[in-house]
Amino acid sequence: MVVEHPADSVGGHRQGKPDVAVVGGGPIGLASAWRAAQRGLRVLVLDAGEPGAWHVAAGMLAPVAEADFGEDALLDLNLRAAQGFPAFCAELAEASGADPGLRRGGTLVVARDRDEAAELDRLHAFRQRLGLGVERLLPSRARRIEPALAPTVRLALDIAGDHSVDPRRLVAALREAVRRAGGEVRAGARVRRLLPDGVELADGSVQRAGTVLLAAGAHAGALSDAVPVRPVKGQVLRLRDPQGPGLVDRTIRTREAYLVPRADGRYVLGATMEERGFDTAATAGGVFELLRDISEVVPGVLELELEEVLAGLRPATPDNLPAIGRLDGIVYATGHHRNGILLSGLTGELAAAALCGEALPGWAAPADPARFARVPA
Amino acid sequence: MVVEHPADSVGGHRQGKPDVAVVGGGPIGLASAWRAAQRGLRVLVLDAGEPGAWHVAAGMLAPVAEADFGEDALLDLNLRAAQGFPAFCAELAEASGADPGLRRGGTLVVARDRDEAAELDRLHAFRQRLGLGVERLLPSRARRIEPALAPTVRLALDIAGDHSVDPRRLVAALREAVRRAGGEVRAGARVRRLLPDGVELADGSVQRAGTVLLAAGAHAGALSDAVPVRPVKGQVLRLRDPQGPGLVDRTIRTREAYLVPRADGRYVLGATMEERGFDTAATAGGVFELLRDISEVVPGVLELELEEVLAGLRPATPDNLPAIGRLDGIVYATGHHRNGILLSGLTGELAAAALCGEALPGWAAPADPARFARVPA
Repeated sequence: MVVEHPADSVGGHRQGKPDVAVVGGGPIGLASAWRAAQRGLRVLVLDAGEPGAWHVAAGMLAPVAEADFGEDALLDLNLRAAQGFPAFCAELAEASGADPGLRRGGTLVVARDRDEAAELDRLHAFRQRLGLGVERLLPSRARRIEPALAPTVRLALDIAGDHSVDPRRLVAALREAVRRAGGEVRAGARVRRLLPDGVELADGSVQRAGTVLLAAGAHAGALSDAVPVRPVKGQVLRLRDPQGPGLVDRTIRTREAYLVPRADGRYVLGATMEERGFDTAATAGGVFELLRDISEVVPGVLELELEEVLAGLRPATPDNLPAIGRLDGIVYATGHHRNGILLSGLTGELAAAALCGEALPGWAAPADPARFARVPA
Repeated sequence: MVVEHPADSVGGHRQGKPDVAVVGGGPIGLASAWRAAQRGLRVLVLDAGEPGAWHVAAGMLAPVAEADFGEDALLDLNLRAAQGFPAFCAELAEASGADPGLRRGGTLVVARDRDEAAELDRLHAFRQRLGLGVERLLPSRARRIEPALAPTVRLALDIAGDHSVDPRRLVAALREAVRRAGGEVRAGARVRRLLPDGVELADGSVQRAGTVLLAAGAHAGALSDAVPVRPVKGQVLRLRDPQGPGLVDRTIRTREAYLVPRADGRYVLGATMEERGFDTAATAGGVFELLRDISEVVPGVLELELEEVLAGLRPATPDNLPAIGRLDGIVYATGHHRNGILLSGLTGELAAAALCGEALPGWAAPADPARFARVPA
């Protein structure tokens, strides 16, 4: 039995089906919906109601560290996103009346041994070539600015421009911004499949829409064959200092782990990278390795209270680049892998442009979802 | 305002106040209530409704390993309790119709280095002097019976007689046994203070009773000055093997940690010992140390799912012995520290005897609560 949902009727001025049905209520879907609503489109966000990867994510805004050497296209997207992120947050705060949780603490990347120090020197040179701020700190200097660092730290890079944002606050602010822009966010609306003119929901009902925007994160692969998205599991620990903030002020990164401080004495410690399908169970090994790695550089982490152990699923594509743009009548905004928070603002603008039928700028071409269709059968 | 609770009226034959108000609905209070009800006393168990230390406990039945060298009186109590535990469980299963979760898997104590091996040899000799079964296993033999052991294990003791019980099942069975014996278990009844003829509850109401039995675990110290009980925090991890049972069949102990298998592929990994007052927050350090210690001897633990991180409060006295018996009109059954599960059956019998005005046997004298009153002011 097919049940038609009545037309969206926020404010009484809505008639008929929405212009856009956004599949996914995470930061990508919401940022896209917000930007689309700002452009005058009637948007309906279908949120399955299960917190996505954003609920688990630490929210590092680290454009360079998250792009491997050689991933130039991704690096370019990340750099653009990082540059625009403060303005995105400022506009969002203004539009929503809510604090998106941007924290300008900077990041310290630390090396524990000679190999890691050599790696940091490569990262240092790379950032300098890119004209990005970075300072090389000997251990004594690093420990002066972050006294919680272990004496065994061999080298550190101070990346004052790599900030962080609290993804849970970001999503809350985006939800409010969508609503204030006239859009609707429908909770508990799980999409079962895409239709030529809308979507079918898990309860069997159909939601018609002018265009479907697929922003379903790791679940996008199950809804469309055109963009191959697989889940990459990431476990994080959420910690709390009963003494309040101050153990570390900056995000602390090692090769395997990172510790992101919030303003209130809480910390997010992440994250594993595991190819295990749609498995979100916390594991003893994941928790152990995160604690081992970070406690080698910030021993005081072991004094913190453990509030949550969580796992999320990053939506990864074969080339680690997202899929943003129109293909066969659907607009894609997924596949952001480790960069979903950082790229949320940028993706929202691109997706809204695609929804309005605009051609995307040349620098966004590497994220064109059509690239996967080019693979010979 | 003081509100009198109406008389307990289970089965319609109860008139007036109960003979015994048991403060505490854990295994000690429930076993005491069950035994008292079997002796014809009308019992009312006041259960604060917060799971106690038993909810966290692994349920090892290890009389020798839990008594330090020199703690002969505690060792004697533990040995008596261990000897009687299977019969206690059998009677309880019969009386309750529920499985108390006794598991006769045995225990393997393992040494990781020369020091620990020397310690195992002392434990081996000690158990032999006591006439208790124990077998000394070289690593190759230990790994034949428990293939999940790390190759680095240096020595193992196979203690076939050290079993385990599932404390959550034990408590459920005891609750049912109390009810079937005609007693009442009142949930959500938190006792605020003891009165000469009953107790005052947190809601201000008064429950009169012929005698009060104080079995409030770590909270006993707040209700009575006569027995100094302090909380000793213990953190445990509850793990699950999605492949089902079989990683290890026996309880595996190191000097710092133990891994107790349940029948269904679940494991309890415990436990820290921390003097931190009434703090039950899980900590990063507690979790890390447990995982580090046990994964050195059973690396496969790191593949398990992490279901729960919990902390409980052991009720400890200055001499590590429990307080069981009558003092100044109150019957005490508390202070069981690390041995509350093992000693539950034995304590129930002693407490019921004390409630009936009987003198306790000479071997129970070291647990006499009056010993603390002898300390000069």
